[in-house]
Amino acid sequence: VSEPLCFINGDFIPASQAMVPVHDLGVQRGYCIFDFLRVTQNVPLFCNDHLERFYRSAKEMRLTLKQSKEELKTVIGQLIQKNQLPDSGIRILLSGGASPDGYQLVQPALAIIQQPLTPPADEIYQNGYTLVTYPHQRQIPHVKTTDYLMAIWLQPWMKGKGGDDILYQQNGIVSECPRSNFFIVTQSNTIVTPARNILKGITRKQLLEIAAANGFAMEERDISIDDIRRAKEAFIGSSTKRVIPVNRVDDIEFGPCKDDSVTSRLYDLFFQKEKQAIHDAS
Amino acid sequence: VSEPLCFINGDFIPASQAMVPVHDLGVQRGYCIFDFLRVTQNVPLFCNDHLERFYRSAKEMRLTLKQSKEELKTVIGQLIQKNQLPDSGIRILLSGGASPDGYQLVQPALAIIQQPLTPPADEIYQNGYTLVTYPHQRQIPHVKTTDYLMAIWLQPWMKGKGGDDILYQQNGIVSECPRSNFFIVTQSNTIVTPARNILKGITRKQLLEIAAANGFAMEERDISIDDIRRAKEAFIGSSTKRVIPVNRVDDIEFGPCKDDSVTSRLYDLFFQKEKQAIHDAS
Repeated sequence: VSEPLCFINGDFIPASQAMVPVHDLGVQRGYCIFDFLRVTQNVPLFCNDHLERFYRSAKEMRLTLKQSKEELKTVIGQLIQKNQLPDSGIRILLSGGASPDGYQLVQPALAIIQQPLTPPADEIYQNGYTLVTYPHQRQIPHVKTTDYLMAIWLQPWMKGKGGDDILYQQNGIVSECPRSNFFIVTQSNTIVTPARNILKGITRKQLLEIAAANGFAMEERDISIDDIRRAKEAFIGSSTKRVIPVNRVDDIEFGPCKDDSVTSRLYDLFFQKEKQAIHDAS
Repeated sequence: VSEPLCFINGDFIPASQAMVPVHDLGVQRGYCIFDFLRVTQNVPLFCNDHLERFYRSAKEMRLTLKQSKEELKTVIGQLIQKNQLPDSGIRILLSGGASPDGYQLVQPALAIIQQPLTPPADEIYQNGYTLVTYPHQRQIPHVKTTDYLMAIWLQPWMKGKGGDDILYQQNGIVSECPRSNFFIVTQSNTIVTPARNILKGITRKQLLEIAAANGFAMEERDISIDDIRRAKEAFIGSSTKRVIPVNRVDDIEFGPCKDDSVTSRLYDLFFQKEKQAIHDAS
């Protein structure tokens, strides 16, 4: 098996040789942003949306890219061409660079890596995820930083609680999962998702558009634990996982996903949109 | 000028060649701990205290070192011997390792780097630092992680406010500066420093011992903004900076440090302890 190539500081090199200086602020101080997009049938899905967000993250963190969006898009295309990993993930990282004093930002370092991606097992789309809530608010939440310290630290705790993923909450208001957005469906079939203190996902953006185009009622507002208790359905959305139903949040049971549920219809509509995107790109 | 050597994954190599894989969890997910100690006259100051804390941080984050404390101490001694940087800082980093799925912890990666250190200018010990408060609570605060995202992000804001450093607060209770502990001296000459939601510094530990040994009243408890307003003095303590007086916190003025102040006496006692430590090691 030949190993995939990465794009790092302007060169395509084998993944195992892709290195960053130990003095880089991404290593020393966790000062690093990224974006992650799914590749299906060699098509980088919703690539423009991901690049838009990546450049917004970079600007917010005062990291100045030498490359334009179009240039990055070309590099991503080259990487896909060279690696031939039709079902994979592409991660674009931008860190503060190798700072002489370990604190001042310097010329940022760019790395783009591609790795095979195993999709979630089919039964997960039926049985759903169990979420366990944890009191935490991500810092600078609107920026896609590499800060996943809490998420990784909580893994054994989460597994001990029987959870498949964590749902962050603060003072009874939930925000997001570490790598996906959270949604509920009310008794009157309104889809609700938090509007603040979160990272706005690209799948979330697509689902909002799908809901608007297909006559679903949709609200972006705070969700309390009581709102979840009163809800009919709950689900999460992410670039890797599309739409996954939630079967339980702490002690609140939803059970497996029904074929006529809003979650199920949204999944189908999202899958169609993805197919259209693949078709348009081919 | 020959460049200093680093110790990385078991080898001594030139600093500019010290690299970590881009797939390391320290880069990908900010999952990395460290410790930092000052070297003076080629002596690693309070090295045992720093190593104790480093191993506690590692344990808390489920990062298992192959090396014992004694072995790391030997490596630090070899690095000092080889580099001949009598006034410098040594940083010991331990990250989650190059994880295949970018989430699961694997064998951690160890790096030890040494860099020259410029001490703060003499007038800083007279004029002191201006602190500006910012509402933030570091995550997993009792562990020395590489999470300095907020601290670096706030640098332009802090400078715009005329600050020399940031003092984190939440709901009017202050905790710490990003790289140092905070202390006040009450009107009755009691030294007070926060006990919770902070990283317990090695200089803080030494100052507590010095205070106890020299008949100062000392309390570890929450400090409110009102407590600061009523205080006689304020100062910070850190391994790099020893004891630096605080001349202002937001709108609360303390002015420059007086020779007969508690801050000044603590600085002198700390400096003596440091000299003793150098003498004992030589």
